[in-house]
Amino acid sequence: MSAGGRSVVGVDFGTESARAVLVDVATGGELATAVHRYPSGVIDQMIPGEGVALPPDWALQDPDDYLESLGATVRAVLAESGMDPADVIGIGIDFTACTMLPVTADGTPLCRIPELRADPHSWVKLWKHHAAQPEADLINETAEKRGEGWLDRYGRRTSSEWFFAKALQILDEAPGIYARADRLIEAADWVVWQLTGVETRNSCTAGYKALWSKQEGFPEDEFFAALAPSFAGVVDEKMSRDISSPGGRAGVVDADGAALTGLRQGTAVAVANVDAHVSVPAATVVTPGSLVAVMGTSTCHLALSDVDRVVPGFCGVVEDGVVPGLFGYEAGQAAVGDMFAWFTGLVAGPGGSTEELHRSLESQAGSLRPGESGLVALDWWNGNRSILVDADLTGLLIGATLSTGPAEIYRALLESTVFGTRVIIEALEGAGIAVEEMVVCGGLPYQNRLLLQLTADITGRPVKVAASRQTPALGSAMFAAVAAGPELGGYDSIVEASERMARLGNDEYLPEEGSGATYVDLYSIYRELHDTMAEPSSTMRRLRSVQARTRETATRETRAVPA
Amino acid sequence: MSAGGRSVVGVDFGTESARAVLVDVATGGELATAVHRYPSGVIDQMIPGEGVALPPDWALQDPDDYLESLGATVRAVLAESGMDPADVIGIGIDFTACTMLPVTADGTPLCRIPELRADPHSWVKLWKHHAAQPEADLINETAEKRGEGWLDRYGRRTSSEWFFAKALQILDEAPGIYARADRLIEAADWVVWQLTGVETRNSCTAGYKALWSKQEGFPEDEFFAALAPSFAGVVDEKMSRDISSPGGRAGVVDADGAALTGLRQGTAVAVANVDAHVSVPAATVVTPGSLVAVMGTSTCHLALSDVDRVVPGFCGVVEDGVVPGLFGYEAGQAAVGDMFAWFTGLVAGPGGSTEELHRSLESQAGSLRPGESGLVALDWWNGNRSILVDADLTGLLIGATLSTGPAEIYRALLESTVFGTRVIIEALEGAGIAVEEMVVCGGLPYQNRLLLQLTADITGRPVKVAASRQTPALGSAMFAAVAAGPELGGYDSIVEASERMARLGNDEYLPEEGSGATYVDLYSIYRELHDTMAEPSSTMRRLRSVQARTRETATRETRAVPA
Repeated sequence: MSAGGRSVVGVDFGTESARAVLVDVATGGELATAVHRYPSGVIDQMIPGEGVALPPDWALQDPDDYLESLGATVRAVLAESGMDPADVIGIGIDFTACTMLPVTADGTPLCRIPELRADPHSWVKLWKHHAAQPEADLINETAEKRGEGWLDRYGRRTSSEWFFAKALQILDEAPGIYARADRLIEAADWVVWQLTGVETRNSCTAGYKALWSKQEGFPEDEFFAALAPSFAGVVDEKMSRDISSPGGRAGVVDADGAALTGLRQGTAVAVANVDAHVSVPAATVVTPGSLVAVMGTSTCHLALSDVDRVVPGFCGVVEDGVVPGLFGYEAGQAAVGDMFAWFTGLVAGPGGSTEELHRSLESQAGSLRPGESGLVALDWWNGNRSILVDADLTGLLIGATLSTGPAEIYRALLESTVFGTRVIIEALEGAGIAVEEMVVCGGLPYQNRLLLQLTADITGRPVKVAASRQTPALGSAMFAAVAAGPELGGYDSIVEASERMARLGNDEYLPEEGSGATYVDLYSIYRELHDTMAEPSSTMRRLRSVQARTRETATRETRAVPA
Repeated sequence: MSAGGRSVVGVDFGTESARAVLVDVATGGELATAVHRYPSGVIDQMIPGEGVALPPDWALQDPDDYLESLGATVRAVLAESGMDPADVIGIGIDFTACTMLPVTADGTPLCRIPELRADPHSWVKLWKHHAAQPEADLINETAEKRGEGWLDRYGRRTSSEWFFAKALQILDEAPGIYARADRLIEAADWVVWQLTGVETRNSCTAGYKALWSKQEGFPEDEFFAALAPSFAGVVDEKMSRDISSPGGRAGVVDADGAALTGLRQGTAVAVANVDAHVSVPAATVVTPGSLVAVMGTSTCHLALSDVDRVVPGFCGVVEDGVVPGLFGYEAGQAAVGDMFAWFTGLVAGPGGSTEELHRSLESQAGSLRPGESGLVALDWWNGNRSILVDADLTGLLIGATLSTGPAEIYRALLESTVFGTRVIIEALEGAGIAVEEMVVCGGLPYQNRLLLQLTADITGRPVKVAASRQTPALGSAMFAAVAAGPELGGYDSIVEASERMARLGNDEYLPEEGSGATYVDLYSIYRELHDTMAEPSSTMRRLRSVQARTRETATRETRAVPA
């Protein structure tokens, strides 16, 4: 199988920066790491150099930032490790998703064309661009009305973050840009195109974000026509029906790609993938029974199964979406680390150190007993992704008294995210997909051990931790080894790559005896609040409407002021 | 009518200190003020000098602290003003209530007797001593069972803070102390006894705290016997059926009183009263139509009416309880300033200045529009006094998102206390007692103008502010002028004293145009949460039970550890 001395590169394109890791093919040992921040970061205020202000909920990026970061990080890991590019047998990348852009037939981003640059729709729409909500609403209504069968795969609700909502927003608001775009493409696939000179489309983003399935392909043209007559041909005019599975080879590094990265021309390039999804095999999970949680500012949950089921409120189920031959189920929690950071920011006081506070809160919160704080929270500080799929839901804290301290609230927030995870586990198990253990990765598990102990206590399941702190980049490197294949010193399959290259850490968290009964009670309280507040005319929803109305009035009044 | 140059002293006995004010009888002008902290403050950990630890929920005081403070403050105002004691025509006091103690027939507090000092039951039980809840529960159950008619006057529920719950706790837990006590007496009446040498009992504490009414007197002995056979004679054995109305004269300063205070022997001493209640005429209110709010760490609401009605959830209705000839209705909110201080303490960070933060939060919160924060809170950080009368209810915050800032939460907490006030107003008006305006006094109105504007906006009523920042002490001084009577240069009635001596400040807060509709919606959300969470098996109550169980387990386990 793998030859000694060979290595692979994985590049993880995050929200603020890209991270490359150079990995030993035989052992998965990480030989070098490099991070490069995108010069323009998240563009949510003003188009760079154009003085064009963006409306609320917009989030764009500059595609050239990706190429700069790709070049810089790959060159850096080569230099740091001293590795001969001849011994680098492959490169794989993963990306945030759905992060998409309009390009010309030769792959030129429209925002690179001077006369289109001032139009925000010519830029990359980042995953967290939330301005396509009207389009998402129309997609959901139209799909319901037409009885689209694919709705079941997505918990009967699609998100404003997904591909067709974003594409339709371009058509709605900038038909000229839509017309000029020969292709609409995921940034992940666009970067692979820049490396190889060949356009490919990966099945992971197609499946989870663009309503595609291996069995049924994309929705019918009639569906798109029902959204807007000129949208009918979006798939054939702007996309492709040729979808490649993860583990496949997209092509090889071409002359331009070699010049950019310092890799040898002809190096294997893996089909692109999504950050959370490549983390699954990098966290050693290639078979059913585990729930992988990629924990960071938000958390993404992934489970594998050999059965195809409808799991209400899940983000999606995609055959071959994570590991070929298995169905990959995805769920998510929209605020996890973000919510803890919000709270420490709130209580740190002006100029206080939140890092130190995190540590002291974790230590004090850890000495509380389950139930002692008298608090329960609903973890909806950024809406609810699974299983309610509703960005309009908000956070709730109940049980505060004059003697409630910050550590008690902190613990309640931690617990609330785990209650949210338990809801996801129950939805999976209710659909017949067993969850025997949790395997966690991402940045948060290494910063917050109390959260992992609570995860074990509240879910009643052992919690294992991936050894790598950079599972997405490692996962992409593993897919690179599969793209290279055994003939070049790589592997036959991601299952084999995972067995050789991925490891668990030594720490395992087991449910603490005696905490179970209290958490059953607290969870039943959480669940009742969860179900009640999700109802159509709940106090929470009415409150949100009052806020929306106030904001509209404020906007109208601001506009009415003479300029 | 009043003669020029004459003055009166009012002494307000608070939770931590006593405050005396020397007031010009003719104008109400405040000539001197003095404050003295009780040396032992609130005794809630350990009996001073005895090494006896107190259980949770206990709150005691040392009666000798009252005498020391009385002497110190009255001497200080005489010295500061240079007033000749011959020109001081009266003294009046008000007190926290129910704050009561066991004494011998000559008025010696049992805790002054060396062999009884180590027993916590020999000390003063402060108003916020909450350890008599089992006794309060028994009183409520027994009264319900026997169909006691007086229950209606107290919103059908009496508090653990009240007189007979505290008295019964002494009998239950320290029958020896109960037997040694010749008298059980309000601290207010005990201090007047020390000044005059004469035992009197005031109708205000008797009515609001000891189930007495002008028409019906105390509950029947059969009722007390049903609580405990040896409690049957509590009124005749330990108290008195001779009850004096506010505005009356309890007696005159005797030799001991003169030695203590520096006042002339023979100076008129008013019947004692309760701090919040004396504030009503001091805030200019002597007729129906106004709701007086004494706003501080908690808020006490008082309204006058010429009709006797049952107001569900009110603390009490007492004829002559505030102003002779009218029925005084009392309600309360258990956490107001306390809750705002809790929040600024939470967000100030370690070592941060909460005072500065209060100001900056008030200013930022003031620039938000109604509904803009998207937050609503239930103001139950210390339970709910009116109209739910339940110390076990807890605080709730709903609507938080990652962009929620401290000023938004601060405003939501302010608003929540005013929603609580609106519930009280609706209960009064539902019973046929009109509330046309609010008149506020206490410490909080001068610290938090935003709260007053919100009070106008949310209640839809004008808010007036008492001119004096020390209405209780001023009110007591006014009752002193009535006790002295016109023959000594005082007044005939508290109505006359109020007209001459009390004033409103210049600021008046009117409901802001346009805020009303939004607050109607927000209040309906508050009210739905209020009613839902008060239900017997609400999530809030279940959460509290889980906490109680956890605490019990913790206590058991701590006890089980070998000493």
